[in-house]
Amino acid sequence: MSFSPLVDRLLESLRVLPGVGPKSAQRMALHLLERDRPGGERLAAILAQALAEVGYCRRCRTLTEAELCELCRSSRRDERLLCIVESPADMLAIEEAGGYRGQYFVLHGHLSPLDGIGPEDIGLDQLESRLSEGEIDEIILATNPTVEGEATAHYIAAQLEDRDIRLSRLAYGVPMGGELEYVDGGTLSRAFNGRLPFSSV
Amino acid sequence: MSFSPLVDRLLESLRVLPGVGPKSAQRMALHLLERDRPGGERLAAILAQALAEVGYCRRCRTLTEAELCELCRSSRRDERLLCIVESPADMLAIEEAGGYRGQYFVLHGHLSPLDGIGPEDIGLDQLESRLSEGEIDEIILATNPTVEGEATAHYIAAQLEDRDIRLSRLAYGVPMGGELEYVDGGTLSRAFNGRLPFSSV
Ligand SMILES: [Zn+2]
Ligand SMILES: [Zn+2]
Repeated sequence: MSFSPLVDRLLESLRVLPGVGPKSAQRMALHLLERDRPGGERLAAILAQALAEVGYCRRCRTLTEAELCELCRSSRRDERLLCIVESPADMLAIEEAGGYRGQYFVLHGHLSPLDGIGPEDIGLDQLESRLSEGEIDEIILATNPTVEGEATAHYIAAQLEDRDIRLSRLAYGVPMGGELEYVDGGTLSRAFNGRLPFSSV
Repeated sequence: MSFSPLVDRLLESLRVLPGVGPKSAQRMALHLLERDRPGGERLAAILAQALAEVGYCRRCRTLTEAELCELCRSSRRDERLLCIVESPADMLAIEEAGGYRGQYFVLHGHLSPLDGIGPEDIGLDQLESRLSEGEIDEIILATNPTVEGEATAHYIAAQLEDRDIRLSRLAYGVPMGGELEYVDGGTLSRAFNGRLPFSSV
């Protein structure tokens, strides 16, 4: 309720942002309109451009506007180690924790048969062609420690059964039922170092 | 740090929003890119449109894309009562509190000679022509109860000295040093009802 239908539509649109309720939407809209129109114009333009241009890395499937993301283009990463995560946010959290020097394969969610979400819906059908791109010694199944994440890890493990690749999972330093994205860096680092063979799960 | 320069620019752009730090900018960007691209596209389009089209109401100078805002077009408001506030957010807070049925005149900030902010910079030069549009019995000086807000109220009172208009201010139910925008509705309502002649300040 702002005496302007367009401002009201702006308030409503801002609510798509996670954690933004009516009061913070109003604070954001008035801040941009009253105090930072150039910043707002930049945000609108870059948001539109990012949504139009950012897709998935051909190799690891994280978010990028390029064919290959910057990590996949780097020559300083261990090509024989592949970490599979449920989202770009998880990949970022692991990178920020530091310590891991291998490659990634980024899913977009987890398997959820009851919701009709199968392997193709989360990009798992691309794993095969990723594996054909080079020799991989070990795959770290770093899906979330939730029921769906564990089920997704088991599904991947079954797919890879016949291959000569060591499978591991993160050590249970990460809290059960939680989301990787919100785990602190120290815990994540320790979980990486203490990773176990996948068969012992 | 996201392995995509464009996503990094998006993270940076989101930081113009008040209350958004690095972690929430990342959560917002990944949410839009991974889970709600249509919502993000709508936000980008409406934000750009609002910044291009929303200006000030010719009469009360609140934010609106029309020549006159919806409140100024309403026939149900008391034409003889005018409330002067420092921002559209203050006008919205008073409207949400309910009880006040008059008109508004919206400044965009307060006088601040040390920062070089004079009457024209906050739209005070338009007050004269607003007053010539109709008979006004009383002006409620509802600037913020801060040093600058009080100084602005006194400046306006001095300008209006020779006119046959009653001046009042909000009762000091509003906490000193605070910002109207964040005062709860009940306190605001009481402050409106207990308003005093401006000369008694
Ligand atoms: Zn990549
Ligand atoms: Zn108006």
